[in-house]
Amino acid sequence: MHAYRSHTCADLNKSNVGETVRLSGWVHRVRDHGGVLFIDLRDHYGMTQVLCDSDSPVFAEVEKLRSEWCIRIDGIVKARDESLVNAKLPTGEIEVYIRDMEVLGSAKELPLMVFGDQEYPEETRLRYRYLDLRREVMQRNMVLRSDVVASMRKRMWDKGFREFQTPIITASSPEGARDFLVPSRLHPGKFYALPQAPQQFKQLLMVSGFDKYFQIAPCFRDEDPRADRSPTDFYQLDLEMSFVTQQDVFDTIAPVLGGVFEEFGGGRKVDAPAEWPQISYADAALKYGSDKPDLRNPIEMQVVSEHFAGSGFAIFAKLLEQEGTEIRAIPAPTGGSRKFCDRMNSFAQQQGLPGMGYIFWRETDGQMEAAGPLAKNIGPERTEAIRQQLGLGVGDAAFFLGGKPKSFEAVAGRARNVIGEELGLTDKDRFAFAWIVDFPIYEKDDETGKIDFEHNPFSMPQGGMEALEGDPLKVKGFQYDLACNGYEIVSGAIRNHKPEIMFKAFEIAGYPKEEVTKRFGGMVNAFQYGAPPHGGCAAGVDRIVMLLADEDNLRDVMLFPMNQRAEDLMMGAPSEPTSDQLMELSLRVIPQE
Amino acid sequence: MHAYRSHTCADLNKSNVGETVRLSGWVHRVRDHGGVLFIDLRDHYGMTQVLCDSDSPVFAEVEKLRSEWCIRIDGIVKARDESLVNAKLPTGEIEVYIRDMEVLGSAKELPLMVFGDQEYPEETRLRYRYLDLRREVMQRNMVLRSDVVASMRKRMWDKGFREFQTPIITASSPEGARDFLVPSRLHPGKFYALPQAPQQFKQLLMVSGFDKYFQIAPCFRDEDPRADRSPTDFYQLDLEMSFVTQQDVFDTIAPVLGGVFEEFGGGRKVDAPAEWPQISYADAALKYGSDKPDLRNPIEMQVVSEHFAGSGFAIFAKLLEQEGTEIRAIPAPTGGSRKFCDRMNSFAQQQGLPGMGYIFWRETDGQMEAAGPLAKNIGPERTEAIRQQLGLGVGDAAFFLGGKPKSFEAVAGRARNVIGEELGLTDKDRFAFAWIVDFPIYEKDDETGKIDFEHNPFSMPQGGMEALEGDPLKVKGFQYDLACNGYEIVSGAIRNHKPEIMFKAFEIAGYPKEEVTKRFGGMVNAFQYGAPPHGGCAAGVDRIVMLLADEDNLRDVMLFPMNQRAEDLMMGAPSEPTSDQLMELSLRVIPQE
Repeated sequence: MHAYRSHTCADLNKSNVGETVRLSGWVHRVRDHGGVLFIDLRDHYGMTQVLCDSDSPVFAEVEKLRSEWCIRIDGIVKARDESLVNAKLPTGEIEVYIRDMEVLGSAKELPLMVFGDQEYPEETRLRYRYLDLRREVMQRNMVLRSDVVASMRKRMWDKGFREFQTPIITASSPEGARDFLVPSRLHPGKFYALPQAPQQFKQLLMVSGFDKYFQIAPCFRDEDPRADRSPTDFYQLDLEMSFVTQQDVFDTIAPVLGGVFEEFGGGRKVDAPAEWPQISYADAALKYGSDKPDLRNPIEMQVVSEHFAGSGFAIFAKLLEQEGTEIRAIPAPTGGSRKFCDRMNSFAQQQGLPGMGYIFWRETDGQMEAAGPLAKNIGPERTEAIRQQLGLGVGDAAFFLGGKPKSFEAVAGRARNVIGEELGLTDKDRFAFAWIVDFPIYEKDDETGKIDFEHNPFSMPQGGMEALEGDPLKVKGFQYDLACNGYEIVSGAIRNHKPEIMFKAFEIAGYPKEEVTKRFGGMVNAFQYGAPPHGGCAAGVDRIVMLLADEDNLRDVMLFPMNQRAEDLMMGAPSEPTSDQLMELSLRVIPQE
Repeated sequence: MHAYRSHTCADLNKSNVGETVRLSGWVHRVRDHGGVLFIDLRDHYGMTQVLCDSDSPVFAEVEKLRSEWCIRIDGIVKARDESLVNAKLPTGEIEVYIRDMEVLGSAKELPLMVFGDQEYPEETRLRYRYLDLRREVMQRNMVLRSDVVASMRKRMWDKGFREFQTPIITASSPEGARDFLVPSRLHPGKFYALPQAPQQFKQLLMVSGFDKYFQIAPCFRDEDPRADRSPTDFYQLDLEMSFVTQQDVFDTIAPVLGGVFEEFGGGRKVDAPAEWPQISYADAALKYGSDKPDLRNPIEMQVVSEHFAGSGFAIFAKLLEQEGTEIRAIPAPTGGSRKFCDRMNSFAQQQGLPGMGYIFWRETDGQMEAAGPLAKNIGPERTEAIRQQLGLGVGDAAFFLGGKPKSFEAVAGRARNVIGEELGLTDKDRFAFAWIVDFPIYEKDDETGKIDFEHNPFSMPQGGMEALEGDPLKVKGFQYDLACNGYEIVSGAIRNHKPEIMFKAFEIAGYPKEEVTKRFGGMVNAFQYGAPPHGGCAAGVDRIVMLLADEDNLRDVMLFPMNQRAEDLMMGAPSEPTSDQLMELSLRVIPQE
């Protein structure tokens, strides 16, 4: 017999009755039923009930076992009494009578129980991650993550892509976040950087003629602590293709991700990839107040300025006299109660706005009536026009926000989310996707008036060189995101592969040619030797797994995450180097005040 | 029609004749045949001959094209004249008459030609890697590497393993080489390290109950320059399993690697995994003078001390009077000429030995005669006894080395290689594998007399605690390597998962308990909470690809390698940080003298 097991803890059933078997695993819990010890023996695959009565030659040793000891047992498989069969467990028909037992690894008193649902502080969970990971939900999440990544790989291979590993010790990548630096020992005073993304390398692969690249790529950013992101690194499904248009990239990645969500979505509805809408950045802002709209929520905002211009609601009427202002409505079907409307108004106030005006429609004496102060101010005709435009009726409500869109758009977006959720309009059992397209290349800093890149400086401007010669704020890029349930899960672009257009694009943002060559020399040089048109995208693996696992903490889908202060409590990182190490690197630490 | 291509450059054949097609790719070369321009148009997939005669509306533009410009053409597919069909090319039946052409990316004068076999200095190749990678052999090598890695993944999945990504920004790992450090911005004066291998994490995964783990894992070591290794990082197929013996690990990885060599070996013979011999470390040293023997070479050394003890060859006879000395023979079938024997003798001298004695057997007047000074010294009987022991005959030779084995073993091993190659005994069309087992856990420093770990300190000693209580130099570990054609391609062990045995093992090597807890705290702590027995191994991806690609420079199987001074010439790494960056990291560079 094998030294440790003849079967896993998920293998045995009625057909094994009478066999002598060997199992290894962890003592999940022990119960003493009047001189008979019942042990749930657990391994990665499942659980088997093993038991030891006083007849067993090893009863005395088995009595000493505690939770999470790792043991090996030999025993005889017996059928359970019909009344004791556990149909939920694959091994629920049998139990194993222990005849021999060996402790493979004993355990000290546990700082964290594997059995049960007790909650522990995150610090405890991270310090004893090897215990935390034994818990059922964590085993499931990590297996899910591994399977999702494997499925992504298979789907990319099926599409004719090859995976290439790009360097991890390299030069700074121009993603705009903060690099992790790595001091060079052989070149005192010089540093490498960990890549923020394989952006430059994947573009260089295209210039090298590889045509289709992907990688499950680790990305490193020295981020300030924030609850919803890792302070050090994350993974993306990174891909790039040559000789393609934006639509080609969509047609490649959409079925891959759609397939992954279908495969691992646990029966939740997944919108068909061919039907994912393409929404312009401008429309997304208008309709959803966000460039990553949650389309599970059917609410679409609308411009209703005309109904307020010159109306009796002086605040809006006056606002509209200023240039660049608008009134937008958030329709709220089934939200037609004063209580709900007041709560939403408070929500807007909490978010820093003066409030949200509202109208709601109710039935009074068999007649539809528009209620709320706004309706009174603008009178019945305008109110009715609004109702008709928004397609609302009795029992519904609408909220109104006004001003320059930038000043209220984000709050409007959040209000839309809350309204959708509170009214139960948002379908929780669905993954809803939307491509956001036509991002502006540039944005203007309101304070300084300076024009800078809105997003990625390497995107090809729609209209090419000609477009760059007009108003930069009107230039859109072949640049896109994919939103899923309110999260950005993909970002990408058709790249600017023409050096002259790239220099011009940077010049507009205030970067002279020398600066561009200095910062992005590797890529800019390469583009002068026959660069193909190319484009691609990157999908956030951690976030996708989080959505599929229905978790809201990234750390619950990562094996050994840092805490929010970027510390690994289990391994003790970061730590103080030895003085020899510092000497070898020609570095000195500046003492802190 | 698609913006860039209706077909790739490998697609078109006779069935497309008459079609109007669109192709994109690089101008591989242009030939001007009296007013007709022939262009080999190349993309990742293949090559198509396109041509342009003076009738073409774009003749003037096509005339301006140079090698490595990236272009798009529209044209009409025509069958080649029978006499011009190129059977070697998938597209060799047709050619495309250009009707329209667009330059997608022009090229400056090339520092390196993609067409042809010209050799370039490595610095040029690395600086313009995107051009170097366009060359046929580099495209082939990188595709091979990607396909090998994909095949490894599929084979591991098929064996029930899941891939888990372990942290890259972490604490120092105890592999004994030099770490790359990463300064922490949030914790001034503290540093992370890049992992030398995922050793501790994969063991922690076993303690976490994951049972079977693998990873194509990047490993980082700050190595001093050496021709045959990367100065910064390498990849390994890393795996670990719980509840296993050494043989289980062999049975897992052997078919995976055997399968990969079969799949990508290009028809070279691959020894069947079930037949890979297990050779003890001691036997490997004796027979092959190496712990990574090349078994394509049939030569096995033998101990022949008895024939020299008390013989007329005074040097060996005297040597043998000292304790711990031996005489070993390297049989050299077909090496029986004075010229060859003298050359091998010189080889040993170049390698720092006084020389190698030899005997060779020839036929003189129809009689076998043993020639060489040694034969005379020891006389015909002893000579004949040696011949019989070694199984040699007319036309063969044998070389002799004496002393303490450690003093000549390595040279003997190299001599065995050279003899095998020079005599054509080594089968170049074969991949020959051998497991090397029973490594000693400890070694004694001859100068200091200090006992230290010979290899990996985390291996389980054979015989457990009991063995550690005897002579440490006799303790063998459950530790193993796999050799292929003279390279170590796998290394692994059954781990020491029992804290008390681990502390004892370290104590013998002079590390007190506190030191062990300090250096390897993450893992040692974990072992106190129910650790399962476990073991695994790691296979060197770069080296395996190198063997398969038949390259002898690691950089030829890496996409964007550093040069030997650990510089990335293309990206300009390492580079000087800004003073802001240093300030943020609380670091100061010590000025160099």
